[in-house]
Amino acid sequence: MTTCKIQCHLKYKIVQATEFVFLIQAAHHPDQTIIEEQLSFNPPIAWREFHDPSQQNRYIRLHVEACDSFEVNYCATVERHSVINLDLQQNLNEVAIPDLPDEVLPYLLASRYCNSDLFVEMANRSFGWMEQGYSRVKAIEQWIYNNIFYVSGSSDQFTTATDVLIHRAGVCRDFAHLGIALCRALGIPARMVVGYVEIENFLPDFHAIFEAYLEGGWVLFDPTRLAPVENLIRIGTGIDAGDVAFSTFYGEIELIKIEPIITQKLDD
Amino acid sequence: MTTCKIQCHLKYKIVQATEFVFLIQAAHHPDQTIIEEQLSFNPPIAWREFHDPSQQNRYIRLHVEACDSFEVNYCATVERHSVINLDLQQNLNEVAIPDLPDEVLPYLLASRYCNSDLFVEMANRSFGWMEQGYSRVKAIEQWIYNNIFYVSGSSDQFTTATDVLIHRAGVCRDFAHLGIALCRALGIPARMVVGYVEIENFLPDFHAIFEAYLEGGWVLFDPTRLAPVENLIRIGTGIDAGDVAFSTFYGEIELIKIEPIITQKLDD
Amino acid sequence: MTTCKIQCHLKYKIVQATEFVFLIQAAHHPDQTIIEEQLSFNPPIAWREFHDPSQQNRYIRLHVEACDSFEVNYCATVERHSVINLDLQQNLNEVAIPDLPDEVLPYLLASRYCNSDLFVEMANRSFGWMEQGYSRVKAIEQWIYNNIFYVSGSSDQFTTATDVLIHRAGVCRDFAHLGIALCRALGIPARMVVGYVEIENFLPDFHAIFEAYLEGGWVLFDPTRLAPVENLIRIGTGIDAGDVAFSTFYGEIELIKIEPIITQKLDD
Amino acid sequence: MTTCKIQCHLKYKIVQATEFVFLIQAAHHPDQTIIEEQLSFNPPIAWREFHDPSQQNRYIRLHVEACDSFEVNYCATVERHSVINLDLQQNLNEVAIPDLPDEVLPYLLASRYCNSDLFVEMANRSFGWMEQGYSRVKAIEQWIYNNIFYVSGSSDQFTTATDVLIHRAGVCRDFAHLGIALCRALGIPARMVVGYVEIENFLPDFHAIFEAYLEGGWVLFDPTRLAPVENLIRIGTGIDAGDVAFSTFYGEIELIKIEPIITQKLDD
Repeated sequence: MTTCKIQCHLKYKIVQATEFVFLIQAAHHPDQTIIEEQLSFNPPIAWREFHDPSQQNRYIRLHVEACDSFEVNYCATVERHSVINLDLQQNLNEVAIPDLPDEVLPYLLASRYCNSDLFVEMANRSFGWMEQGYSRVKAIEQWIYNNIFYVSGSSDQFTTATDVLIHRAGVCRDFAHLGIALCRALGIPARMVVGYVEIENFLPDFHAIFEAYLEGGWVLFDPTRLAPVENLIRIGTGIDAGDVAFSTFYGEIELIKIEPIITQKLDD
Repeated sequence: MTTCKIQCHLKYKIVQATEFVFLIQAAHHPDQTIIEEQLSFNPPIAWREFHDPSQQNRYIRLHVEACDSFEVNYCATVERHSVINLDLQQNLNEVAIPDLPDEVLPYLLASRYCNSDLFVEMANRSFGWMEQGYSRVKAIEQWIYNNIFYVSGSSDQFTTATDVLIHRAGVCRDFAHLGIALCRALGIPARMVVGYVEIENFLPDFHAIFEAYLEGGWVLFDPTRLAPVENLIRIGTGIDAGDVAFSTFYGEIELIKIEPIITQKLDD
Repeated sequence: MTTCKIQCHLKYKIVQATEFVFLIQAAHHPDQTIIEEQLSFNPPIAWREFHDPSQQNRYIRLHVEACDSFEVNYCATVERHSVINLDLQQNLNEVAIPDLPDEVLPYLLASRYCNSDLFVEMANRSFGWMEQGYSRVKAIEQWIYNNIFYVSGSSDQFTTATDVLIHRAGVCRDFAHLGIALCRALGIPARMVVGYVEIENFLPDFHAIFEAYLEGGWVLFDPTRLAPVENLIRIGTGIDAGDVAFSTFYGEIELIKIEPIITQKLDD
Repeated sequence: MTTCKIQCHLKYKIVQATEFVFLIQAAHHPDQTIIEEQLSFNPPIAWREFHDPSQQNRYIRLHVEACDSFEVNYCATVERHSVINLDLQQNLNEVAIPDLPDEVLPYLLASRYCNSDLFVEMANRSFGWMEQGYSRVKAIEQWIYNNIFYVSGSSDQFTTATDVLIHRAGVCRDFAHLGIALCRALGIPARMVVGYVEIENFLPDFHAIFEAYLEGGWVLFDPTRLAPVENLIRIGTGIDAGDVAFSTFYGEIELIKIEPIITQKLDD
C-alpha cells in the first residue's frame, strides 16, 4: 500500500465568460482510497459536482466571468492499494462476447478518436492469430511501444487512432487511443483511463493509459511504458479522450499554467 | 392522437454462433404510449432486455447458434400523442450552455460519425451569424436538404459527417449525422433518433432523424424531409448511429429479410 | 525470349456523347518488341494517338456519340525479351538522391493515391534500418504481401495508400500504390506499371505492379505475387493509377465487357 | 507595361548534407520578359538548371554539405506586359472537353492536394447549374473568398482541398488548391501558379494562385483577393503545391531567413 500526495494547480486568463467542466479529482475506485481532499478556486466561485451514470466520473461544473486570473487548486492524499499479482494476471483469459456484462458492451463500439471499425482487418491480421488472453493485449501494448514514437507536439486534439497508425508518432493519449482501437477491433472491450503519475524527466502533466476487459474485470495497460500502471492515481474513465479531458470549456480562455504534481512515499 | 400498428420482421441465416443486440421495440417516451406489444423469435430462444443508463434504450440481447433460419418478429400497437405546436416551436430559443442540464452536456461532444470538432469553422461561418433558436436549427435542416442528395448506396457504415459534407450524398443516417455535427459545432446539443415511419415510394426500412436541445427540451428535425417528424414512432436515442443500430452483432450472419412496417389509422 | 499474343476487347453502351482516352496498347519499351498490332473500333471512328512528354504513354483519344454498342478491339503480337538476372538484381544498390537523374525526381513526390508524405515515419520505422538496395524494396514487397489481403471489391477508385494501410485489403492497384508510397517515403523513386499478364484462376483483367529506381534503372516489383513480373507485357507507366487508367472518360457510359487476354508461347 | 525588381534572399543552416531543388527564378512566359537576372550562392557552389518537359519550370538543383550558413540570392528585373482586357475576359467560354488540347488533359486529373475526384458532387451541386464560362470560375473564386478564412498557421504541408473545405481556413496555397479542385471536378482544367507579388501588410513571401483553362488559354484567378493577379511575376506552374515548392530538399536543414521582395515602378 502506498500513500500519495496529489497537488493540481491550474491557472487561466478568462477572456470571455466561460463554462467549465473539470475532471481532476481522484476517482472513488476500489484500487484507491481518498484519505482527504480539498478543491478550491481563486477567486472563490460556486460550483457543483455531477457524475455520469455509466462511468461515475466526478465532473466539476462552474461558470467564470471574464477576469485576468482564475485558479483551480486541488490537493488530495490518496492511498493506493492496487496490488498487481502478475502471475495471476498473466493467466487471465479474454471474455467471450456472450459472457460480457451488458454495461461493458459500449466499450466495444467505435468512438471519435478510437475508430476501431476501421481496424478490424489490421487487428485481425496482426493479432488475430495469437492466443487469446492477457498476453494478446500485452502484445498490442508491445507493438505500439515498438512502432509509435513518443513525440510531444506530434499530434493535436483532432488526432485519431488511424492518424497515429499512419504517422507513427503521438503522446500518451494517442498511444492509449491506438491500444483501445485495436482491442475493440478484436472484440475486447477497452477504454481510456486518465490519472496522476510521476514520470521521470517529464514536466508534470496528466497521463492517459487504457484498460481492457478480461476475465475478472478491467486490466490496465500503458503502451508508452513511461511509468508502472500501478503507480497511477485514477481520475476517470472514458470512451476516449473526448469524455475525460481534464478541462472541457465553452468560452474563451488562455491556459497560463498547468501543474499536476504527485509525490509518493511508501508506507512503513 | 393517432394509433399506429408496427410490424417488424427480420430473418437471418446464422453462419456461425452470433451474439445479437437488437434495438427494434418502441421506446417508452412521453410522446407515445405502447398499448400492446409482442416480441418473439423463431426458433424460440432465451433473451433479455437491458437499458443503458443515459438513454434508456430497450436493448434486446441474445445468443444464436448456427442455423439456416432465425427470425425476429415484433409487433406493437402504439398511440402517438405528439402534438406539435408549430407557433410555439418557432419561438423556441437555444439554451445557453451554462443553463444546460448536466445530462445534456454529452450531446455536445464529437462522436465517431458526428465529428463535430471538425465543423467548428464551417458551422460558425455558415450559421454562426444567424439569430439563435429554432429557426437556426431549421436553417441547418434546410441547408442539408438543399445540398445533400438522398442516394441509396452512396454511403456505408464507415461514412462520417465530414464524408457527407464532401460527397454531398447519403441516406437518412448520413443526413442526421450532418445535422447533429453542425448543431454540436455551434454549441447546440443534438442526438440521433431512430424509429418507424411510413415513407411513400420507399421500401419499408428503419428511419433516422435527429433532435436538438432547445428551450423546453428536445425538438425533432428531419433533413431528408421524407416524412413529417410527428409521424415517427420512436425506437431509441443515440450519440450517433453507432449506439442505435437496429442490430449489433458479433458473429457471422446473412441478413435475408428486413421488413419494418408501420400502418396508422386516425382515431375517431 | 517469349512471343505473346494480346487481345483486348472492350464493349460499352454510350449513354451520352463521351470523350475517351484509352491506354491499352503495348508500350514501346526496351523490354519488349511489338511485332504487329491492330487497333480498331466498331463502329469505326476517327481517333488519334498522343504521348505525354515524360512517360511516353501511348494515349488514344476519341469522341463517341451516344449509341447502344461501341467496341474497342486491340490485338498485338509482342516479343518479350526481359531477361532478369536475379544474381545481378539482388546486388543492386539504391541511388543516392544527388545521383538521381533530373527526370527521375518527380517520382519522389506524393501523388493522389500514393500519399507518400504521410508515410515518412512509418516507412522509416519499419524499413529505415534495413540495408539499402534491392533487398530493401523486396522487403517492402514482402511486407505488403504478408499484411494486405487481396480482396476483389474491397477498394474503389478513391482508395489511397493510407486507406490500404489501415484496411489491409485491396486489389493490384492498391498493392502497387502502397509499395510506391513506401518507396518514395524512403527516398526511392517509384512508379506504377500497368500491363497484360496471365494470372491463374483470375478472370482476364489489366494488372498493375510497380517499379523502383535502383542503380542501373527501373526494377519491377509485384507485391500481389500473382504472376512473375517478367511475364508482364507493359502498357504504360504512371505517377499512380490516375494517369494510367486503361480508360479515362468524360461523358456517360456503361461498361458492358472488359476482356484483356494474353497468351504466350515459348519460342523454339 | 510595368518593370519590376525582384530580390529573393534565402538563408539556411545545413545540418546534414542536403540535395536542393529550388524554384525561385522568374519564368520565361509570354506575360513577362526577364530583362536581367542574377543567381548566386554563398558560399559559391556548382549548380545546374533543368526543366520539366510539361511545364517548363526552371528548377535549380544543387548539393550542399553541412555548414552553418548557406545563402541563396536571386535578383531580377522583369517587365510585366500582362494587359488584362476585362471586357474580353468576362465573355470567355469554357472549352468543351473534346476541344481541349492533349497537353491540357492532365490538369483535369486529381492530385495529392487537389483531390478533385472527391469534389464531383459538391462542385456540381454548387456550381453545376451556372452558366459556363469565365463567370463560373469567378463564382468559384468568390465562393472561396466568402467561405474560407485566411489564417496563417491554420494549415500545413499535408493539408488537402477537402481539409480546407471542412476547416474553412488556410493560406494562399490552400485557397488555390480548393479552386483547382472545384474546377477540375467540373471538367475545367486548372493548375497552380506561384510567383512574386507585393501584398500590403503582409511579410514578404511567395504567393500561390491558380489558373483555369478557358477559351483562348489559361486565365488567372486569386481566391485570396490579396493582390491583383496581373501584378504577379510568375515563377512556375504546377499540378499542385507538390511540384512548385520554392524549395524541395532531401537532407536536414534549418530555414533561417526567407525574404522574397518585389518592388515595381510604372514605366514612363
